[in-house]
This record gives sequence, C-alpha cells and structure tokens, in this order.
Amino acid sequence: MSMCWFITTLAITAFFSSLAYAYDNNPLQDICVAVNDSKASVFVNGKICKDPKLAKADDFFASGLNVSGNVVPGLGFATKTVDVKNMPGLNTLGISVGRLDLEPQCLLPLHTHPRAAELITLLEGNVYVGFFVPDVANFFKSRLFSKILNPGDVFAFPKGLIHFLYNVGHKKATVLAVFNSQNPGFVMIPNSIFASNPPVLDDVLAEGFHLSKTQIAELRKKFS
Amino acid sequence: MSMCWFITTLAITAFFSSLAYAYDNNPLQDICVAVNDSKASVFVNGKICKDPKLAKADDFFASGLNVSGNVVPGLGFATKTVDVKNMPGLNTLGISVGRLDLEPQCLLPLHTHPRAAELITLLEGNVYVGFFVPDVANFFKSRLFSKILNPGDVFAFPKGLIHFLYNVGHKKATVLAVFNSQNPGFVMIPNSIFASNPPVLDDVLAEGFHLSKTQIAELRKKFS
Amino acid sequence: MSMCWFITTLAITAFFSSLAYAYDNNPLQDICVAVNDSKASVFVNGKICKDPKLAKADDFFASGLNVSGNVVPGLGFATKTVDVKNMPGLNTLGISVGRLDLEPQCLLPLHTHPRAAELITLLEGNVYVGFFVPDVANFFKSRLFSKILNPGDVFAFPKGLIHFLYNVGHKKATVLAVFNSQNPGFVMIPNSIFASNPPVLDDVLAEGFHLSKTQIAELRKKFS
Amino acid sequence: MSMCWFITTLAITAFFSSLAYAYDNNPLQDICVAVNDSKASVFVNGKICKDPKLAKADDFFASGLNVSGNVVPGLGFATKTVDVKNMPGLNTLGISVGRLDLEPQCLLPLHTHPRAAELITLLEGNVYVGFFVPDVANFFKSRLFSKILNPGDVFAFPKGLIHFLYNVGHKKATVLAVFNSQNPGFVMIPNSIFASNPPVLDDVLAEGFHLSKTQIAELRKKFS
Amino acid sequence: MSMCWFITTLAITAFFSSLAYAYDNNPLQDICVAVNDSKASVFVNGKICKDPKLAKADDFFASGLNVSGNVVPGLGFATKTVDVKNMPGLNTLGISVGRLDLEPQCLLPLHTHPRAAELITLLEGNVYVGFFVPDVANFFKSRLFSKILNPGDVFAFPKGLIHFLYNVGHKKATVLAVFNSQNPGFVMIPNSIFASNPPVLDDVLAEGFHLSKTQIAELRKKFS
Amino acid sequence: MSMCWFITTLAITAFFSSLAYAYDNNPLQDICVAVNDSKASVFVNGKICKDPKLAKADDFFASGLNVSGNVVPGLGFATKTVDVKNMPGLNTLGISVGRLDLEPQCLLPLHTHPRAAELITLLEGNVYVGFFVPDVANFFKSRLFSKILNPGDVFAFPKGLIHFLYNVGHKKATVLAVFNSQNPGFVMIPNSIFASNPPVLDDVLAEGFHLSKTQIAELRKKFS
Repeated sequence: MSMCWFITTLAITAFFSSLAYAYDNNPLQDICVAVNDSKASVFVNGKICKDPKLAKADDFFASGLNVSGNVVPGLGFATKTVDVKNMPGLNTLGISVGRLDLEPQCLLPLHTHPRAAELITLLEGNVYVGFFVPDVANFFKSRLFSKILNPGDVFAFPKGLIHFLYNVGHKKATVLAVFNSQNPGFVMIPNSIFASNPPVLDDVLAEGFHLSKTQIAELRKKFS
Repeated sequence: MSMCWFITTLAITAFFSSLAYAYDNNPLQDICVAVNDSKASVFVNGKICKDPKLAKADDFFASGLNVSGNVVPGLGFATKTVDVKNMPGLNTLGISVGRLDLEPQCLLPLHTHPRAAELITLLEGNVYVGFFVPDVANFFKSRLFSKILNPGDVFAFPKGLIHFLYNVGHKKATVLAVFNSQNPGFVMIPNSIFASNPPVLDDVLAEGFHLSKTQIAELRKKFS
Repeated sequence: MSMCWFITTLAITAFFSSLAYAYDNNPLQDICVAVNDSKASVFVNGKICKDPKLAKADDFFASGLNVSGNVVPGLGFATKTVDVKNMPGLNTLGISVGRLDLEPQCLLPLHTHPRAAELITLLEGNVYVGFFVPDVANFFKSRLFSKILNPGDVFAFPKGLIHFLYNVGHKKATVLAVFNSQNPGFVMIPNSIFASNPPVLDDVLAEGFHLSKTQIAELRKKFS
Repeated sequence: MSMCWFITTLAITAFFSSLAYAYDNNPLQDICVAVNDSKASVFVNGKICKDPKLAKADDFFASGLNVSGNVVPGLGFATKTVDVKNMPGLNTLGISVGRLDLEPQCLLPLHTHPRAAELITLLEGNVYVGFFVPDVANFFKSRLFSKILNPGDVFAFPKGLIHFLYNVGHKKATVLAVFNSQNPGFVMIPNSIFASNPPVLDDVLAEGFHLSKTQIAELRKKFS
Repeated sequence: MSMCWFITTLAITAFFSSLAYAYDNNPLQDICVAVNDSKASVFVNGKICKDPKLAKADDFFASGLNVSGNVVPGLGFATKTVDVKNMPGLNTLGISVGRLDLEPQCLLPLHTHPRAAELITLLEGNVYVGFFVPDVANFFKSRLFSKILNPGDVFAFPKGLIHFLYNVGHKKATVLAVFNSQNPGFVMIPNSIFASNPPVLDDVLAEGFHLSKTQIAELRKKFS
Repeated sequence: MSMCWFITTLAITAFFSSLAYAYDNNPLQDICVAVNDSKASVFVNGKICKDPKLAKADDFFASGLNVSGNVVPGLGFATKTVDVKNMPGLNTLGISVGRLDLEPQCLLPLHTHPRAAELITLLEGNVYVGFFVPDVANFFKSRLFSKILNPGDVFAFPKGLIHFLYNVGHKKATVLAVFNSQNPGFVMIPNSIFASNPPVLDDVLAEGFHLSKTQIAELRKKFS
C-alpha cells in the first residue's frame, strides 16, 4: 500500500475551488472583470463585474506557477490554480490553468470536471494518465484510454469523463493543466461519495460498490 | 447485503446507450431527423440527417413507456429510454426521456450524465434520491442534497454531478426521467472504474479508494 | 360545437408563467438557486441566485404532479408546472416539466414555446397531437405531423413550431410534458392575437385571417 | 375588406425559405461556405461546406436588394431575401437579411421566426408594426408592443414572438429586415394552421378559434 | 495623399461604442430591456434589465437612420448606430444595426468586430469592400476577398476577420450594416495600435511593422 | 532596428494553422475523434469524426512540447502547436495548446485569435506582453493593458483583442499558451494586411495608415 494516502489528517482547503475553463457562454463585452465574491451583494450565473473603466492589467495577471504548491500530507500531490478567484479578469473568458505536482508513486485520484475539457502538458517526470469512456454497447463496462507520458507530452481528457494522473517515475512530476471554463468544477470521486455531509444512506454505498456495510464503514473512516 | 446485486451474471447491453438531452447546440433548421447510424457513412458532432422532405410523424414518435423494461438480473432495476436512437426526430432537439423501475431495496447506482441536467417525476413507490455537491471550501468533502420522494414528487439533478435513486419502499417504484440533451451520456461510477477494458493499473484504484490490492482484486471480480 | 370552450368567463391566471427548458445557456457553477423574484432587487438574463452556501435539497424539490390541476372552466383542460418559480434550484439547469389534463373532446389550443423543444409522455387516455412544419417550397402552406397517442406513447414538438393536444378519447387524458429550458415561454396563438392589451388594429386581423371586421369583432368578444 | 388578399390564386414559392440569422452556433473555422443543397450527399445541422481553398469573394456577395421583389397577387406584399441559399458564404455566420415591400393598406401577416430575433429599418413609407408579449400573469392575454414607423425608424422583434407589419400610408413602403440566424425560419400563422397538408382535424380549429365547423371550412377555402 | 484623413484634429467620441450583434447567448425570457448604465449599480455579462412589467414599445424603437451622422473631420466618414445603448430592448436579442456614410475616396479603416459577423447592404454609391482570410498554409500571408459594390448589393464579413469599406465612386456612399451581437465591439486597427494609452513600447511597433523608431514616432503623431 | 526581422526570406508554413480553443460549441457525444482532412470527403462546421469504436488513446496524445520549434529566420521566434490537426481527439473538445520560443529582443507580432481567449504561462525568460482594449468613449483610442512577466507568471488575452509578446530579457524566453477553441484562428496583423493575395488597393492602406503610396510600396516589399 502506497505511502501517498497514509496520513491525511490535516484540513485540506479549496485547492480547486474555482478551476474554470472552456465551453462557457460567450462574452458580451470586451472585458468583464469579476468583483471579489466577498464584496458581492448579488450572485449570478458566472460573476458580477466591476466598472470596466476601473479594470487594469493586474486583473489579467497572476504569478507563482514556477513553484510547487504545498503537498497534501499523506497524499503526495500539490495543486495551484489560476482561476477567476485569483485572476478576476478571467471572468467571461472561459479558460483557466493549474499546476499539479506529484511525488513518486502518488496519485491525483479519479475525478471529473463537470464543465470543462482538460489538456495537460507534462513538464517533468513520468506520469500514467487515462480516462474512462462508457461502453456504448454495455454501460456496465467502459474503455480505458491511457498513456505513460514523458516530458513535453500532451494529453486530453474529454469534458465530464472520469480521469486520473499517477506518477510512475522515480522523481517528482510536474504537470500544467488547462481547462476551457472559468469554473470547470472538481468532483473527486471517492471523497465526494464517502465523505459527504450528511452521509448518504449505507445501502446506497453497500449496494453500489458491492461491499458489506462493515466495509463501507471502514471506507468512510479513511475518507473522513 | 441486498439481494439487488447478488447474481449479475448475464450480459447487460446498452440500457442507456444514447440517452441525450439539454444544453445541446441550437438547431439550425426546423427539423433534422437522424439517419440510422448503421446506414451512416460519416460521423459528425451529433447526427447526420435525412432529406427533410422524407421526414414523417413517426420520426417524432415512440411507444412503450407504460410498461417496465426488463429487470437487470441481480440488480433489481429496469430502464427504457426514448432517445435519438429509437426516435430519430429528436436529433438537434436537445431533449430525451427514460423510464426507470426499481424493485424494493434496489438501486440505480451512483452515476453522472456528462452532457445533461436531469429532472425526475416519481409515478409510483417511495424513492430515496440525492446528489453530491463538491464543497467549495474543501474539495475532499461534499454536501449531500437528498430527499425521500412520494408519487407526484419531482427532483432535479444538476448537470455532471453524481447522483443515485434507491427504492426505500415495500413495492416497485417507477420514475420518469427527462434530460436536456439528445445524448446526455451515462457514466456508471463503480462499473466504469472497476470494469474497464483494459483494466486500469491496480495502484490507481488501491490508492484512490484507500484499499489494498487484494481488496481491489475482489472488487474487480464483482464488477466483471 | 364543443362544450370545452363554452363558458370561459373566469379569470385564468399564469398557468405556464414560467415553464422552463432546454437550449438555455450553460451553467457556470455547480448550482445557482434562484432568489424569489419578489425579493430580487435586480433583473438579469435568467435569474439572480442566492448564496450557494444557503442552498438546500428543498430547492431542487417540488410535489403534486400526481393530481390534476384545476380545470379551466369552459375549456376543459388543467395544467400544473414545475419550473424555476416553484423549484428555484432549476435556475441555470435548462429543464422543466408540467402535467396536462384534458377532458374528453377538449383541447390545449395551438401554441408555441419560443425557447424550448417539448417531449410528451401520455400517462392516460387517447390524445391527438401534432405540429406544423412550414413548407420549404411554399411558405403559404405547411406539413402537419400528427399522431393519435395511447398510454406510454411519446411524441416530440420541435422548438418554436405550432402544436396542439386534443383528447379524442372518452375519458380524461393525462400528459407529462418536459421542456429543455428553465423558461420555455408559452404563446397561446388565438388568445395572444385576439385578446391583446391594447388591441391590435382591426385591419391586421381582418386582412391576416381573411375575415370581415365584423367577424373579427365577434372573435375578439369570445376571447376577451 | 382590403384588396390586399382578394385574389391570391397564384402559386407562391419559397419567399423566406431560408431566412437565416443570429443565435446560431459559433463557427469553428474562419469560413465554411455552403455546398449547394442539390449537390449535397449528406444533411447536417446547418450546411455542409465546400473545400475552403475553393471559397471566393462571390460566395459572400449577392445583389438586387435595391429593387422590389414580385408582389404576391392579391396580398400586396413582396419579399426578397439574402440567405445561405443565394449567399453560401453565410453558412456558420449566423446572420441574414431581407427586403419587404408593402402596397398601401397591405400586410405581412402575423408570423414568427423560431430561430432569430429581427431588426427592421424603414427605408420608405409609413408602417404600423408590433409584436405580442404573453402576459406573465394570465397566458390567455397578451401585451401588444406597437409603433407607427417613419423612414429611418428602427424596430426590434424578439425571437419567437408573433409580429406583423402593415402599411398604413398612402404609398408603397420598403423595409430592410435583418435576422441573427442563417436560417431563422418563417411560420406564417394563419396559413400554417389553415392550409396544412394533411389538414388538421376540424375540432382542433373550431375549438381553438371558437368558431363553428362551417366557419372553419370557409376559412380553409380562403387559405387553400 | 487623400484629403480624407488630413485634418483629424477634433475629438471623436464613441461612434461604435456598443454596436451589438449575433452569436450572443440565448435569451432566457421573452424580453429583458436593459437598464441605463448610468443608473446601474451592478455590471454583468451583458446588461441588467428593468422590471418586465415596465417595458414598453419605445424600448424597442429608435429613429434617425434616414439621415447621415456627422462626418468625422478629415476622415470623410460618418456613422450612426442603433444598439443596446439607444435601444435598450435589444438587450439579450443578439442583433444591432448601423449606418455608414462615406465621402468619395474616403475609407472606414481596417477593423474587426470581436463578437459578430457583419452583413452590409449598399443603399447608395459605389464601394470597394473586402476582408482578409489568413492563409492556412502560411500564416504570414492572407487571401483577400473583395468586391466593388453597387446599390442593392449585399456583402458579408465573417466574425473577427479584418475588413474595410472604401468609397471608389464620385458621390457619397451610404451603407446599412447589421451585426449578430448586441455588442459586437469595434477594434480600429491602426488607431488601437498607434494611439493607445499608455503607448506600447516602440520596439513592438518597429519590429512588428518593419519600420524604424523614427517612422513609428511619425505614425504615432498622425494618430494622436 | 532589431535583428529579429532582418532576413525573413524563407517560406514559412502553417505555424498556427489550426490552433483551436474555447467558446466552441458543446460536444454531443463522449468522443468525436477527427478524421484526417486529406481523407475527408465532406467538410462541416468543425470536423468529421471517425467511427467511435476505432478511437484510441493515441488520438488524445501528442509529444514534443519540451523542445523549441524551429526559429523563423530573421524573426527570432518559434512556435509549436497541439491542435486538432496533430491531436485528432481534440475535435469537439474546445481546447488547444502551443509553445512559443522567443530570442532576446524578438517579437511575436501583433495578432488576434477570432475564436478564442488565450492564457499564457511563462516557463523561462522575461517577456513584455499586452493587449489593446478599444476605448468605449473614443474608438480612435485604446487602452493598453501590459505587464513584464517573469517565470511562473500567467497572463490572459481576451477573445478577439489585439495582443503581442516581446522578449525584453537577455536570454531565450519560453511560453506555454492555451486557447479555449479547437481552432482559434490566427490573424497576424501586419502580414494579413500587407501580404495579401491579391494585394488590397493602395488607397486603403495609404489612407488607413496615414502613409504615402511610396511608403506603402516599401512596406509591402518587407512583408512579401
């Protein structure tokens, strides 16, 4: 069993809280720089904008993707994102970017982005990546599309499909990931299911995963 | 452990193979009736159409939603769908519909539709339904939005989020489900992951689900 | 002459005031539950949302589609809808649903939905349904696509085309209708034209319908 | 009774057969010039394109909007359109234009465009124009938004709403109308309903328009 | 050297400040009349709307396209636009219109509309028009698609491509231009580049246009 | 005068010929891998797809972004792109990526992408970047939004606006650029205008750039 998920005891906060990408609605003006949420009096589909006369170059700027984020203890991955939260000019632009660092033998677990396709470029290391395409002839099966990537390789994950990235090399791996939405969303699959508040009825998990309720209780503990 | 998934030994084929619905692109003509795939020489984003002069009322018609589909042995649910495959007039219309029947204590497992929101109406029985919303403050957690439905109740599942339906009553339950896409897609989560072809590397599953490789091997068997 | 439209003297209010469906713009976040209009300080394209932290399962829930709405006196039909007005969670989801009950020999008159395709499932009775497709070779003509439906039958109406539902059976008919928009709109054709405020110039109606002004005056009275 | 619709005995062909406008899907390349339908082997949502290397300026050019089309005998209006049929370069551009000429006291009857908003500029004459907005509080009523236009005036018709143009002046009126779709569609309301092939059941018309079947039969004759 | 751009010394203000056209997002209600910006407390993607009950016909009306705008001194062209600023009903309708008048031998300089395709109809005069399509085989080259137009001719400019209109006749030319967006944007190419605030670094212009810094300084003066 | 554009005498081919990104239309199926153009019998809006059963992981894979492309002689920049041409799985995904290398004091000239916003991450070096926003109050002016970037910095260019990248450092700079379209387009501004085939009328350039025809002739030569 890998060391990567051994000690996850710290609170993890908002890594991907607003990854944002493509397929968003078209902009209706040249620029529409987002107002900071904490100052917003009103919520809309997307974000409220500030007076365009007050927009400035810094609204379209962010820094820090040259260094890794903090590694999640026990999980061995680190993420940093540039999205509409820290680059308000991205509002209505339908695009965002993130950096992922993976320790050797560590994983960015199975997840989906409900509102974006993703395109990754491997900057360093060796990473095993893939996504599952439901089998049109039998939806209880799927096809896995996977590759082992080397530096400079590029791989695409279609919108809404389950995918993963796993460091199969002996040193740290670094990935630049881009999305075609200003807020792609991030559904981490085991966690969403096993660590919900409130918890889902045991029967749903036991029956869905073909496990006993005792096994489900154990799984819940690991993800709590 | 429920009887619902005890004996899944039969081949299950294409229940949802083309559920298709909303948020689709706008139509560019009054009607664009799909040509049957097996006769199509070319594939496009969506479907190729037949000569509009040859369209007829039957292209916009289907029947049989008054009776249940065949129950999947060992799983206790049955589905029937009306989509662009059996109602070719739905092409470019961005909508589709399906009927789900659930035996008591049986489940339509956790799944997502990558391209559609879903709205369900309970026709008969008592069903526990819900979806998971990623926690914006901590993506290792989620919020569960769930309800127990009675006949005549309606519930909505947002696009791309994980959801489920579970019969908590003592008799069969019947649900009419609609989607705003002509092809919403259907990603059944445990199956996509544990029954892919080829199988994904053990480490991805072991690490992602915090299980040993032995446990993963057992799970794979149950879903194969 | 049918009894169905003999005595329409009561005020009829807002049956379809916000039927809402597909082809809507994509959502830019997981959920965007609508704020009640009467509390809204601002109007936008769609609806303003409440703080996502305050969203709850009940925002995605509605009930009552198991019983008929109140029959419109003299017209013999009853409608009930689940849309963004009574299910605020539908905001940005691009889908809505309604129930229609028709007395024998009664009609849901010719109408269009400017922003949605519609898909109906007949739950009970026998209904004659159809839509008109403009004739590409001569726009003074049209093609009628119609069917008589039995329980369990499904029929589709393309976006923006004129359609109708008429109970040709001997008992009540019940229809579940879904739309791919959160606000499809409802243009009831004779009423929109003959009961507008202010009234349109007589010449427009006389010339358009090839009727004398006296006949137009009589028609106006029936729809007032 | 106006002379405008007295003698419509000639065959009228395809005036608006492909008016095309806005809200169409976005283009995915710089140009995508339509192949002539009669040479197309395949139909898609929109039009198939020719090899971009063969595109030329004439594909984006049309002429003749400086002179009126032929007046429809007995109806007193003439139309000319520039759309994807006679300007193949419009394919994927989401826009089209038409010229309307109206004899004094003549009408372009009540109609809708299912896929476009329309913006008109009056070049000559005096025209009474308007559209009907369904009353949100009572869908058996509507609000009429109308104006009498003078040369140089501009008026907008929202997408999918019923509208009309009527020459209230003493000389010919000329209108330039633009649409935001390459194929807005044209549903001429009385004709679509009363001159369909096959005819709709009498009851639908009698009940819908609150007329006797004899009156319906007379109306059908006038529109045949 | 033409007289058309000899004496541009006056301040020119906001000719096209909100030309608005097609490919905009779909409307989510029948009408959504824009609130005047100066009264808006909040900015969104598009415009905030007023209470639909307060909408009136005048919100969908504008006048004055029968006479030329004021000629820009030294440039010999005049523009007038009808857009969401002076016709608030256009909000969410995705369409707008403008009138251009050109003195003989005068030019509407090279420009793009980032959010709209454009369709022009020549009302009077003789105009040389064209747009540049990047050469797919060599992006340092382009193909010019151009025509000389006579009254009644129509020409289309694809979305986002550089185009121009030049009066090659001996009398004034008048053009009606429509766009499929409520706010197409207007990027006048030489001016955007040579008259920015603050100025761009000299090297960018010198290197980009293959000119010396002295030549760049001279150009800047002409556009200041 | 910089060395960067001194000797452009070689043929330059198709650097950006199909950069492709966001705001594209939504996909209507899980995957729609493009057929190679040279084998396509038909062109559509986007690309024709191969049979989904034949899709494989390699369709979603490309390599080589770890090394620079070939520097354009005399211009000092090199580009490499991963788009639907060399990664056919990107079809319908609405995203693409490219690598740009700039020699010191060299420029990627002023250009626009008609169909995409762009987000750049600086991997190495120091780059001066910016875009021009038309001045809403005076379209003969613009605002420049610019920054000097260091490694790890991120900057966004809104869709359709003119932008540039210039190496102000003393060593090579490397940029990873992503776009939210599968085919953003690339309009290189001076070249499109001065090196078109056929050439545009001299008057359009002389008047537009406020230069004499002799100066225009010289410019044409430099770009030929």
